[in-house]
Amino acid sequence: MLVTSIRDVKNYEGKEVVIKGWLYNKRSSGKIAFLQLRDGTGFIQGVVVKNDVPEEAFNLSKELTQESSVEITGIVRKDDRAPSGYELTVTNVVLVSMSYDYPITLKEHGVEFLMDLRHLWMRAPRQHAILTIRANINRAIREFLDGEGFILVEPPIITANSCEGTTNLFELDYFGQKAYLSQTGQLYNEAAAMAFGKVYSFGPTFRAEKSKTRRHLNEFWMIEPEMAYFTHEDNMRLQERMIEFIVQKVIERCSRELKSLNRDIGKLENVRAPFPRITYDEAVDMLNNGGYAFEWGNDFGAPDETYIAEQFEKPVFVEKYPAKVKAFYMEPDPDNPDLVLNADLLAPEGYGEIIGGSQRIHDHDLLLKKIHEEKLPVEAYQWYLDLRKYGTVPHSGFGLGLERTVAWICGIDHVRETIPFARTLTRVTP
Amino acid sequence: MLVTSIRDVKNYEGKEVVIKGWLYNKRSSGKIAFLQLRDGTGFIQGVVVKNDVPEEAFNLSKELTQESSVEITGIVRKDDRAPSGYELTVTNVVLVSMSYDYPITLKEHGVEFLMDLRHLWMRAPRQHAILTIRANINRAIREFLDGEGFILVEPPIITANSCEGTTNLFELDYFGQKAYLSQTGQLYNEAAAMAFGKVYSFGPTFRAEKSKTRRHLNEFWMIEPEMAYFTHEDNMRLQERMIEFIVQKVIERCSRELKSLNRDIGKLENVRAPFPRITYDEAVDMLNNGGYAFEWGNDFGAPDETYIAEQFEKPVFVEKYPAKVKAFYMEPDPDNPDLVLNADLLAPEGYGEIIGGSQRIHDHDLLLKKIHEEKLPVEAYQWYLDLRKYGTVPHSGFGLGLERTVAWICGIDHVRETIPFARTLTRVTP
Repeated sequence: MLVTSIRDVKNYEGKEVVIKGWLYNKRSSGKIAFLQLRDGTGFIQGVVVKNDVPEEAFNLSKELTQESSVEITGIVRKDDRAPSGYELTVTNVVLVSMSYDYPITLKEHGVEFLMDLRHLWMRAPRQHAILTIRANINRAIREFLDGEGFILVEPPIITANSCEGTTNLFELDYFGQKAYLSQTGQLYNEAAAMAFGKVYSFGPTFRAEKSKTRRHLNEFWMIEPEMAYFTHEDNMRLQERMIEFIVQKVIERCSRELKSLNRDIGKLENVRAPFPRITYDEAVDMLNNGGYAFEWGNDFGAPDETYIAEQFEKPVFVEKYPAKVKAFYMEPDPDNPDLVLNADLLAPEGYGEIIGGSQRIHDHDLLLKKIHEEKLPVEAYQWYLDLRKYGTVPHSGFGLGLERTVAWICGIDHVRETIPFARTLTRVTP
Repeated sequence: MLVTSIRDVKNYEGKEVVIKGWLYNKRSSGKIAFLQLRDGTGFIQGVVVKNDVPEEAFNLSKELTQESSVEITGIVRKDDRAPSGYELTVTNVVLVSMSYDYPITLKEHGVEFLMDLRHLWMRAPRQHAILTIRANINRAIREFLDGEGFILVEPPIITANSCEGTTNLFELDYFGQKAYLSQTGQLYNEAAAMAFGKVYSFGPTFRAEKSKTRRHLNEFWMIEPEMAYFTHEDNMRLQERMIEFIVQKVIERCSRELKSLNRDIGKLENVRAPFPRITYDEAVDMLNNGGYAFEWGNDFGAPDETYIAEQFEKPVFVEKYPAKVKAFYMEPDPDNPDLVLNADLLAPEGYGEIIGGSQRIHDHDLLLKKIHEEKLPVEAYQWYLDLRKYGTVPHSGFGLGLERTVAWICGIDHVRETIPFARTLTRVTP
């Protein structure tokens, strides 16, 4: 007998196939039972008619409970009303394991209860859709960057020196030496860019921040491309092409998942390069004209970013921030050295910053001066300064926050649902 | 002027192009200079003839030092003697930045010295080749698993409970609560496999082991596929197809890098599924017949694995180990419950274990019994036990150690060269 997956039943119309999966829901009356099945690749309905299956298979169909594991045999029928486009006319049902008292019923549950049961909650259609889209975003990013000739590198997670100061770092004991969990791989990626030209990292990053908002996780994933001989302008051009590529790939590959999340796909289809650009100065004016009292020289908060982004239908670059609100390694704007050649990319629909990027200082003495000004330990940055001593070149890079990007593309409120097992101020389990 | 990369000069034979890169080496005499250039995508020679370039460009060519950054303009010529197959007839040389006293000369240096300068050492051809192969192994793994319908998931790195006991774990303070860095994502991947069918994780793992061998790192990357409804047999079949795919893709895409490492490519071409299989019992006999006094019931050490693997020209599966030397979650062999349905895959040429895999216990009561026997805290494993209560199914998975796989495919001695920034007992910098 042909074993297949729900994703692939379309290749077997009219054929008898076996699906190995789980019962998600059912209804039955008298001589017929409708089994809602899932197998991880999708959802499909199996129709069991009493006289068409062995007696024990029909009885089993009526007894099956939510999340029981079953092997279902059936004939694939096209059905335009079905979300998957297909249905199974069941010919046999074999029990693998009966599930008793599955704790997540089809009723509403509180979020903390569901997060405690995250290991089971990820089976639910909404969570399944979000994490499937996440995997497809990951895949699209890698396809895009690999296609552009980037080399994947893995910067270290445990580091002896901190990249941007030690506040908000998780500390650990590394065989008697103090060490930290990495907040960014950028500095290491800069070294790798001088060896490989164009590189990217794709890994977990950690912030011991005590914030508890819908945009914050304490463990999250970043994609950090870094490019030798790239200017601020080159950097923004790459970012907009990458974001367009990701969004269009997700529309192409995950239309069912987007629909199941009630995502307005028209808004995503609109995400095409080039993206609008405004300067920090213009953003400050925009806020003040919009009735937000915002003082020049501050960094934007979440409500500010939301307001700015709402003025655009596409992601918007906000560039050239005051140097003093940004990291020490950013290249000054040649037209105004109080500003830096950076850009944050704000997602539309109120999702805020998804990318932070900049051209990096490539002049040794200027970088050293900045390190002194920030009172960072020069010794720990000696290797980073070396990159400016030996064949330094203009270079740029950016960091894409994966979870915020998933939240935006899925159109959901809180980043905790965008990662398999969220780590927040109050949660380190399961 | 057309800016391109060394990788792409083949598309521009006879054309004038600009390469932005670094000087790797040079020689010059009288009216000619040979510049060895690198740009991260490859290496190429530029020939500068005094009368064919502006005078300052020729003078600069003679002054250029190792690792100076330069923009070279030249005409692409086919040259079958060149490793890249091409050479540049230089028409101009523009300095970006002169490098003085580059610490890594073309002489031999000690390994610790080079590891201290890892941020620069990765520019050297050998290191460049190894890390390029690493990136291509990563890419091939993802292509293979994505093509098989696997969903990428990211298990948490910071965990409150340890997967296989707390020895060898890095501990940290998570907002007042004791937590650990993950040693494996497997348990979480099992939860995800029940939601997505076939999943894999690709992330850093941590072992606070005090071993100092050429096969050990304290921070390393693992690929961990986990498949619902997969038996031990299905598991091994998947592994051998995946290893064949990776190795053949690397031969196809990295032949230049393999050659520069003097890798015997014939040995790699031989890596075709199916792979030989022996049982643990047969491996013990093999060792004893080979003059190694090995007692049944022990786990194999590195020399044992090397001896066993040397008897085969392909990777070899060693299956069905005694339960007591393996992790608590492995499914017992139905023919002999003292053994488990596991397999380690040993790479040839003395590289030892690159994969450890097994079928997992899916029976709730048996798993609970094992947790008690191992004196693990049942409470912390409650969520893992839940997977056996609600729709449990036979399932299997494995973990591929990335760095050991890179070492084997590259044919190099020590894993410290297989990762951008190695973390060992004595090294947490740069």
